[in-house]
Amino acid sequence: MGLTVAEKLIAASLVDGEMKKGNRIGIHISQTLTHDVTGVMAYLEFEAIGLKRIKTDLSVSYIDHNILQADYKNPDDHRFLMDITSKFGILCTKPASGICHQLHLERFAKPGKSLLGSDSHTVNAGGVGMLAIGAGGLDIAMSMAGEPFYFKMPEIIKVVLAGELPPFVSAKNVILEILRRISVKGGLNTILEYTGPGIKSLNVTERATICNMGAEVGATTSVFPSDEITRYWFKAQGREHEWKPISADDDAVYDKVIEINLSELEPLIALPHQPDNVVPVREAAGIDIDQVMFGGCTNSSLQDVMSIAHILKGKHVHGNVDTALYCGSRQVMLEAIRRGVIDNLVCSGVRIMEMFCGACNGMGFAPPTHGKSLRTGPRNFIGRCGTECASVYLVSPEVAAASAITGKITDPRDLDLSIWKYDMPTKFIIDESMFLRPKESFDDTPIRRGPNIKPLPEIEAVPDQLTGKTLIKVGDDITTDHIVPAGAHFLPIRCNIPEISKFVFKVVDESFPERAKEAGSGFIVAGHNYGQGSSREQAALAPRYLGVRAVIAKSFARIHLANLVNFGLIPFILINEDDIDLFDQGDSLSIDTTSLKQGAQYFVHNHTKDVKVAVETPLSQDELDIIRVGGRLNWIKLRNN
Amino acid sequence: MGLTVAEKLIAASLVDGEMKKGNRIGIHISQTLTHDVTGVMAYLEFEAIGLKRIKTDLSVSYIDHNILQADYKNPDDHRFLMDITSKFGILCTKPASGICHQLHLERFAKPGKSLLGSDSHTVNAGGVGMLAIGAGGLDIAMSMAGEPFYFKMPEIIKVVLAGELPPFVSAKNVILEILRRISVKGGLNTILEYTGPGIKSLNVTERATICNMGAEVGATTSVFPSDEITRYWFKAQGREHEWKPISADDDAVYDKVIEINLSELEPLIALPHQPDNVVPVREAAGIDIDQVMFGGCTNSSLQDVMSIAHILKGKHVHGNVDTALYCGSRQVMLEAIRRGVIDNLVCSGVRIMEMFCGACNGMGFAPPTHGKSLRTGPRNFIGRCGTECASVYLVSPEVAAASAITGKITDPRDLDLSIWKYDMPTKFIIDESMFLRPKESFDDTPIRRGPNIKPLPEIEAVPDQLTGKTLIKVGDDITTDHIVPAGAHFLPIRCNIPEISKFVFKVVDESFPERAKEAGSGFIVAGHNYGQGSSREQAALAPRYLGVRAVIAKSFARIHLANLVNFGLIPFILINEDDIDLFDQGDSLSIDTTSLKQGAQYFVHNHTKDVKVAVETPLSQDELDIIRVGGRLNWIKLRNN
Repeated sequence: MGLTVAEKLIAASLVDGEMKKGNRIGIHISQTLTHDVTGVMAYLEFEAIGLKRIKTDLSVSYIDHNILQADYKNPDDHRFLMDITSKFGILCTKPASGICHQLHLERFAKPGKSLLGSDSHTVNAGGVGMLAIGAGGLDIAMSMAGEPFYFKMPEIIKVVLAGELPPFVSAKNVILEILRRISVKGGLNTILEYTGPGIKSLNVTERATICNMGAEVGATTSVFPSDEITRYWFKAQGREHEWKPISADDDAVYDKVIEINLSELEPLIALPHQPDNVVPVREAAGIDIDQVMFGGCTNSSLQDVMSIAHILKGKHVHGNVDTALYCGSRQVMLEAIRRGVIDNLVCSGVRIMEMFCGACNGMGFAPPTHGKSLRTGPRNFIGRCGTECASVYLVSPEVAAASAITGKITDPRDLDLSIWKYDMPTKFIIDESMFLRPKESFDDTPIRRGPNIKPLPEIEAVPDQLTGKTLIKVGDDITTDHIVPAGAHFLPIRCNIPEISKFVFKVVDESFPERAKEAGSGFIVAGHNYGQGSSREQAALAPRYLGVRAVIAKSFARIHLANLVNFGLIPFILINEDDIDLFDQGDSLSIDTTSLKQGAQYFVHNHTKDVKVAVETPLSQDELDIIRVGGRLNWIKLRNN
Repeated sequence: MGLTVAEKLIAASLVDGEMKKGNRIGIHISQTLTHDVTGVMAYLEFEAIGLKRIKTDLSVSYIDHNILQADYKNPDDHRFLMDITSKFGILCTKPASGICHQLHLERFAKPGKSLLGSDSHTVNAGGVGMLAIGAGGLDIAMSMAGEPFYFKMPEIIKVVLAGELPPFVSAKNVILEILRRISVKGGLNTILEYTGPGIKSLNVTERATICNMGAEVGATTSVFPSDEITRYWFKAQGREHEWKPISADDDAVYDKVIEINLSELEPLIALPHQPDNVVPVREAAGIDIDQVMFGGCTNSSLQDVMSIAHILKGKHVHGNVDTALYCGSRQVMLEAIRRGVIDNLVCSGVRIMEMFCGACNGMGFAPPTHGKSLRTGPRNFIGRCGTECASVYLVSPEVAAASAITGKITDPRDLDLSIWKYDMPTKFIIDESMFLRPKESFDDTPIRRGPNIKPLPEIEAVPDQLTGKTLIKVGDDITTDHIVPAGAHFLPIRCNIPEISKFVFKVVDESFPERAKEAGSGFIVAGHNYGQGSSREQAALAPRYLGVRAVIAKSFARIHLANLVNFGLIPFILINEDDIDLFDQGDSLSIDTTSLKQGAQYFVHNHTKDVKVAVETPLSQDELDIIRVGGRLNWIKLRNN
């Protein structure tokens, strides 16, 4: 039987388990990436493991999130990252050199290799046929220590693209269409593998856009084959020698098929507050907007910038609309400057921001109170933009540019725009001068740690009996942004668990942290897809720090599930979904956890309601053993001693 | 008897009083400017006065400080400013169009006219022979309402410049030299008037740099004649028709003379934490630095950017140094792009920030803990950069650029740099598309006010007896940054007096606000030059809100003194300076204020020490009458009813 691209990539890195759907498998990780929000914890964790040098082929620490530097916290993190990476053999970028995913695609992503990144959009590198997966920081630390990365062998969804995108309908609309069809949980435990005649019309950054936002359907990753189009990218990046072809066998077998005719797509928009709340732009047209944000890891390529500039050329953004552009990298910025595009955009009234993630996760450029913001990023979760009462709409660069001109949500096809074709450079501007190279070997130079960088909290082993209250009960699709807020006030304290835990569930229920802390031990009860979104491990560790011992839910998002395991919280799944009605906030619960066995059934005893509710865990015995000792860091220390 | 340039400017606007040194005089204000930190209060105050349209020739509301937008507060302020200015007939820029002083110099400053700005660096426009003065927001509001602006007729200091600046010694060093000689209080109640053969070698932005930082010596303003060099600037800005010559009469009489031979100047540096802590750069050379900031209203002209780029061309900033550039305006940015300079700077590893005040007052780019930051801005007050334990050094663009390369404080003459001459455009790029024009006339469209924009607090009349405790006792040169902190956490709450007052004296004594609030009424005791620095009226209003009724000091900075009057606090000056030793924090004081008379002596009864201390006020009867009714807003409402 032939193999899919996804299977070939997994097979090439497989070191443990059998590649059978649903099986727990372990792969060797050849590259890792972190950014400054998740990286500080990841390197503290690597340090705690006790190795002196990384075992990956390449690990890169990007500084692309917390660069506003409102006080000492961000620059302290930057300095810490530069110091610690240099010691352990990790590359580190200087602040604002570009967005990690765009930079990694330009300089390091390799077809056939595996990449683990402490950011859910690491899947971006699937655009060049790389096996790129997002994970918690502790998983990155373990991979740098040479440990396999474990996950459930996913189903492979074949996404067959036919036709060619019409003018003003760009790659973003492909993934918005998929979100519209399969929802934010439709990709759970799957890999989206793109194929069909339509992929020939998509260049690498277009493919990366589609893979990038695949994170929003909850997929393990997304992947394109590595073909001649990929080769062109590597050649233009001066890395043709790193290219190799990868394609699916003709008789490869897929678990599901999604068919999309690119020619029939139209501009789409995700309405607030979920990326799958997708309708045609024309259905939302005419809504007055306050802001437009160009950029974010989904749409900050040279092509995106050029397309925006084409639409805005000779025109001016509307007086009511505050408009900002974040280029994805210095390569993009320099090429855009040399093509005269930045000049044009300044003349059109666009604010040229630094090269970083920026407003996408609320690091600046927040909308006004009750403001409406059109953005080309991947997420529109409530509060993520920094203004809780604002509404964020997700669109393609073309829709964003057209709307910036009119001041209303606008389908670009409804403006009288000339058609334009992107001309990808045959040779990109290559400048690695903002990458700091590590020292040749480990030495004892002290690492400078700012006062906001706190040691990792100690986690106790799981007792035989879990007792406590239902500290909160929440619905479906609770994102990590709900659990641990994004935004300029909160990102800088992600490396300070005592501090960040004061804001757990801020956008849901501000009283949660105090209630949990007071109770000392307790449970979260949730609906489907708990922990959707980012890879931030604080969404597991901060609740654990507050005393949460287990989460009882209908289902879990992949990365968050792994993070719960990593920090010793038990994820229980309701065997009967309707039993969620048997829980209310404040109920006293207990669970016998004397024996944590794979496939076992457990009973949650709700003492308040005097009922017992059957639950199970979706975990392997290895994972349960990790939880038992209080998480993966405890586990590896015990194993190594 | 002939007149100086300063006297001619004052005479042209004089509407009340006699132009005799020390006399209180009133002038007509033809232009005003505000920025977003001081502007919100200023326009609330104008609204409270009750007029429907401004009476100035031109008023401009710039948005150049709070543009990080960490949450709804900044964008709410922007929206409020756009709404309210449109109603009252005021121009408003969109966010990040440039720094108010640079933009005003480019588009609006006029020789011979008067400009009042709610920012101490408004004096920048003295570079084109304008009478440009910084004042509190309420003074701006009064000027917009057509009221005269009152101040003490200053002494005129003749600053005679001879020679020509040597290579790598730019205009910034002229004002650093003056600071070195006369200190941060040496300019109190004076105007610095520049003259001598050396001024012919200084173009308008060089002159503006020198005038700008004249704010740091405490001068009322600084002024250059308007000559053929000025004319060249106006021609290049497409405004030759707005130029007119102004020069001092040959027999003009000055109160003091300072002579500076430009040819003998060398690169200077202001060490932490005062701008007059000046030594030659070579005395500080070799100190390792963490940061370099190019920009700020003192040094963000095209010439400054070009000079930095010349030094950095083909070189790269040091790996340990985080380096950022803030261009002063879109005109500067566009010209720099077209000359290839932004491209070069990106290649050199410089972070290109938006066009705003930025790091200068701590809106981002804060240094790390105990970090050392080299900056081209005008101020290095403790904590202003956003990191209280950091050290900020003030230098010219050339010293900053040389040091960015070496990673240490460096005299550019010690590097092997080629000599370069600035080539000012004969025609600047003129683009006013980011100025929002007001409506033709007042209408009833509602003004959108965010929840952080609080109504002005009511202020009571002064009772016949002031009683209370010495709430705090501070030393000399207490700046408005000490009184009301700068930085990204605090600037956004300047339009919310209840909130900002929680941080009064934050960098001096965090317990002050609670102590003052509890006491309900009390006094501040201070040394010389109390209220040095900015024009922020919150430094008077927030203490008043907390219950401070009077400040007893050795002397006051000019703008802050006026702000105390505006908000009904009495500034008392110790007749015998040594009497300051008779006060300690916590002492119970009372002052009989039954009669507030110009020139009168008062006695502060220190009940704790059982002594009476003689004080006086430096105020006119009009000012005392304003204080009596609880400040200027109460006063004008009473007068108008």
